[in-house]
Amino acid sequence: MSKLRFNLSISLDGYLAGPDQSLENPLGVGGMHVHDWVFPLAAFRRMHGLEGGEANASTQVVEESVANVGAVIMGRNMFGGGRGPWRDDPPWTGWWGDNPPYHAPVFVITHHPRAPLAMQGGTMFTFVTDGIASALAQARAAAGDRDIVIAGGASIARQYLAAGLIDEANVSLAPVLLGAGERLFDGLGAAGLRLEQVRVIEAPGVTHLRYRVIR
Amino acid sequence: MSKLRFNLSISLDGYLAGPDQSLENPLGVGGMHVHDWVFPLAAFRRMHGLEGGEANASTQVVEESVANVGAVIMGRNMFGGGRGPWRDDPPWTGWWGDNPPYHAPVFVITHHPRAPLAMQGGTMFTFVTDGIASALAQARAAAGDRDIVIAGGASIARQYLAAGLIDEANVSLAPVLLGAGERLFDGLGAAGLRLEQVRVIEAPGVTHLRYRVIR
Repeated sequence: MSKLRFNLSISLDGYLAGPDQSLENPLGVGGMHVHDWVFPLAAFRRMHGLEGGEANASTQVVEESVANVGAVIMGRNMFGGGRGPWRDDPPWTGWWGDNPPYHAPVFVITHHPRAPLAMQGGTMFTFVTDGIASALAQARAAAGDRDIVIAGGASIARQYLAAGLIDEANVSLAPVLLGAGERLFDGLGAAGLRLEQVRVIEAPGVTHLRYRVIR
Repeated sequence: MSKLRFNLSISLDGYLAGPDQSLENPLGVGGMHVHDWVFPLAAFRRMHGLEGGEANASTQVVEESVANVGAVIMGRNMFGGGRGPWRDDPPWTGWWGDNPPYHAPVFVITHHPRAPLAMQGGTMFTFVTDGIASALAQARAAAGDRDIVIAGGASIARQYLAAGLIDEANVSLAPVLLGAGERLFDGLGAAGLRLEQVRVIEAPGVTHLRYRVIR
């Protein structure tokens, strides 16, 4: 059964990204530290074409985050850091090089139409200009029985939460205080979401929490 | 070795209390649900003079929260819900009845002087009008080798965090979204606090996180 889920890392004070996000620093000041737990892992390095690294209790979480994924949805900042009309020369193709780590159809929610972009390794970026419901419908058609993952950023994940569309929230909570930036869970009081804590994994420098969203 | 610590429950979106706190509803709208995990526990019920209840992975956390406590510090709202000059007749003596669950000296930080208030069971409320450093000095003198616990609310805990005075933060994270209210971790970016995750306990309907604060 296909699930709509996300696997996102946040600071203890709730931020997915720090303040002053920019093209040069897309995670904002200090935001990289929210991901400190993942960089040493062999499972993460392998996804990015690197050898070596270690295994620990987080390995399973990284492997699950990319297993059984039939489609990915992301916001325009996640893809382009706020880049709009696609006039760069050469055209902007994302942060991930020629072979992005998605290996699946990726639906980018943006205001700016653009032809689909086929990358190496099975990643195909499709640009969706008519909103989150349309992106989800297209992702469902592409994913079949496999899961659909919201890759970020915070705004897109929040919009899907507020619309009551998320089935499973995977939150990796880092022992970091950013003080400002963009929070993942913000302004969701009116959404009336009920959460069920279904799993907790303690790992070096991070706690992995899984919630089922009950509507 | 005496530690300054707190044991506080927050929602997944970071709130210690919900919106619209009032004398009638001191935890704000929905804020009680942040504590849903604790009410069924025999360890909690015993502290409040009640029989029965259950034991689970949270029992240890509740027992630790009150073990080895030599003094308690709380804010004026935690004691009085915003009550100021102590003109009530009979005078306000806190939310907890004649025998509060502290059984230790409690230092209440307030703008309004008041004579100390001795309760049953060893709880003595002392009202401190000259700030958090003074309250801590008085609590240290009273606690000796035992720990000092910040009982809340969010504002007082944040002030001690921002001042770099907290040694250990115990956070019980409830699977609840309040959407608004008072956040425990807010505006602490400039404090330059580094946290070390030292323990995680998964329990029914809650995750108990312990952080050492490194200065």
